[in-house]
Amino acid sequence: MFGVTVRDHMMIAHSLRGEVFGPAQRLHGATYVVDATFRRADVDADGIVVDIGRAAEALRAVVGELSYRNLDDEADFAGTNTTTEELARVVADRLADRVRAGDLGDGARELDGIVVTLHESHVAWASYERPL
Amino acid sequence: MFGVTVRDHMMIAHSLRGEVFGPAQRLHGATYVVDATFRRADVDADGIVVDIGRAAEALRAVVGELSYRNLDDEADFAGTNTTTEELARVVADRLADRVRAGDLGDGARELDGIVVTLHESHVAWASYERPL
Amino acid sequence: MFGVTVRDHMMIAHSLRGEVFGPAQRLHGATYVVDATFRRADVDADGIVVDIGRAAEALRAVVGELSYRNLDDEADFAGTNTTTEELARVVADRLADRVRAGDLGDGARELDGIVVTLHESHVAWASYERPL
Amino acid sequence: MFGVTVRDHMMIAHSLRGEVFGPAQRLHGATYVVDATFRRADVDADGIVVDIGRAAEALRAVVGELSYRNLDDEADFAGTNTTTEELARVVADRLADRVRAGDLGDGARELDGIVVTLHESHVAWASYERPL
Amino acid sequence: MFGVTVRDHMMIAHSLRGEVFGPAQRLHGATYVVDATFRRADVDADGIVVDIGRAAEALRAVVGELSYRNLDDEADFAGTNTTTEELARVVADRLADRVRAGDLGDGARELDGIVVTLHESHVAWASYERPL
Amino acid sequence: MFGVTVRDHMMIAHSLRGEVFGPAQRLHGATYVVDATFRRADVDADGIVVDIGRAAEALRAVVGELSYRNLDDEADFAGTNTTTEELARVVADRLADRVRAGDLGDGARELDGIVVTLHESHVAWASYERPL
Repeated sequence: MFGVTVRDHMMIAHSLRGEVFGPAQRLHGATYVVDATFRRADVDADGIVVDIGRAAEALRAVVGELSYRNLDDEADFAGTNTTTEELARVVADRLADRVRAGDLGDGARELDGIVVTLHESHVAWASYERPL
Repeated sequence: MFGVTVRDHMMIAHSLRGEVFGPAQRLHGATYVVDATFRRADVDADGIVVDIGRAAEALRAVVGELSYRNLDDEADFAGTNTTTEELARVVADRLADRVRAGDLGDGARELDGIVVTLHESHVAWASYERPL
Repeated sequence: MFGVTVRDHMMIAHSLRGEVFGPAQRLHGATYVVDATFRRADVDADGIVVDIGRAAEALRAVVGELSYRNLDDEADFAGTNTTTEELARVVADRLADRVRAGDLGDGARELDGIVVTLHESHVAWASYERPL
Repeated sequence: MFGVTVRDHMMIAHSLRGEVFGPAQRLHGATYVVDATFRRADVDADGIVVDIGRAAEALRAVVGELSYRNLDDEADFAGTNTTTEELARVVADRLADRVRAGDLGDGARELDGIVVTLHESHVAWASYERPL
Repeated sequence: MFGVTVRDHMMIAHSLRGEVFGPAQRLHGATYVVDATFRRADVDADGIVVDIGRAAEALRAVVGELSYRNLDDEADFAGTNTTTEELARVVADRLADRVRAGDLGDGARELDGIVVTLHESHVAWASYERPL
Repeated sequence: MFGVTVRDHMMIAHSLRGEVFGPAQRLHGATYVVDATFRRADVDADGIVVDIGRAAEALRAVVGELSYRNLDDEADFAGTNTTTEELARVVADRLADRVRAGDLGDGARELDGIVVTLHESHVAWASYERPL
């Protein structure tokens, strides 16, 4: 099994609903350093899992949709707690949509799965892994 | 599959028995930077894998039991080589005990597994992964 | 010249005023991984620059005053752009106040300077350095 | 399941064939920071997955065969695109050969698999995982 | 004194002339992770050292001139050993040219100095520091 | 001003004397990831600050003298608290001795200074800087 990972980041504001979040119930923010891993059983004829340039562009586009925003005001997240876990899923799902739409090239349709990790600090991160 | 990771560290002295360890048979020590990953098929109603504050406290408690000690003198490790691998298992098992005891909250009982990685330097680390 | 550094972090929301900030004029947020370096010409009789436990507590207290907040609503920052540079200065100045107040111990009064670095992502950081 | 990882690096020149590579079709180069993970269901009687000293030597030998070379001129890679993915496979396969040859000790024959990750920059890496 | 740093990278091939370089006399290559720090006595009216967006673009332009090239074939480096040290100076000098040309904005003319660090691996890096 | 840095590590046991050290008064240990920076006003005719191979060997030799030892039993440290700060000084001074002895080559006699940083964990490090 092969994997290729690209890294980018996004800076957002949000608040979290639920006593479990303590002070994070207040409006605050985060930088998420985002790692997106594309997994595939074998490489293609060029010797790659995916066009890494296109993968990086797709990730940049996905984090760009979230960056420099207050997620509490985004219609997409109405009723959703934008925890690190949920945001990892959102990034993975949006990348999967782009893979299916052909944005990463025809070969990317051979991908087996995506893993997205969001680092919220030097001591905490969350990841979400899904098939394609 | 989701995962949430928290990082902490511990500083210990120990020696290792067996020719395979070469100079590490002498009393020496290590800083272990410890990553504990909690894995779960889905997030809970709050959108989280586990209460990250409680997870961090549990990890702090577990590494605190080992920190600033000479493991050669600890009754718990009599007859055990405290290799990085074994210590990764110890940390994972003690975290599992705390999960079962409810220290990480009721929801944590839905966790599927734990992965613990101990970084002993910038060029070497070991991990242990177990179900819950 | 000696230096001792401790690392902590804070997660805040804010917006920045001025065209130069582009999309960062919108309400967004950041995780700042904060490194505070205490500099001193020589070590004390114990062989240290500063009590590292107290230094870490002081840093934790300072970042705790800012954490999980929307800095746009904080009276302390009225009229100030809370850029990474300015926040590095705020953290350094507040640590300096604590040094002078004796929070880091009497010996800390021998410190020569403080450098604070705020990492806002894996590709950008800012620092501020001041004498004591 | 246990894993032990050692890190080393290699610095090579190469070019890549295929339009997908854009400017990387020109002769250029890379530092690959190489992580080799040895996986095993349980530790041996010494409490280890593998003799980490021998594992590090084996990795050093494998990266040494590639280091400070123009891979375009290496007979081993004639007709192969030396992508990060392919090089991860080469490193993993050569380590597997060394395991089978007994270079990592008799116990290493109990290893279950190898994962090799090649970091080509702070924002891109690839990995290959295989059974033993 | 304030500093702001942006990070980017470049991947090049080259060889080094002189017995001191051992195997690095052969054609090989490197990824350089490049940190460019802009230093300034005080921040401007916006609370910044430099427009970080423009700083990142300037660094991207400078590393782009070198990326995906065999430096042995570049006229600019005829007769020069393209060591990590020399390349750090080249990047710093080219950034200084761009500062003076106004590419980083008028305010950037108040900058006091530039420090450029090139990381060639996880265990070696070089830096060059110059006034402006 | 130029600088070249090499990184290595050492794993030691020790205890610290003085109430300020709290639990670190007990026998424990540390991994120190050690960065040694060699500073020089200009590069030599080969375009380098120092032969990086020899610099890495010198650092390896110096950390090798301390590695896998209980510093409480070392005659060299009788009456000395082996704090991170003191060990940074020891490493720097021993490297300076090797520079003066010609171990890093004749050119290394042009070096202006050495900075040694010892990372004791992901959240704490100390450095010592001295002229040559």
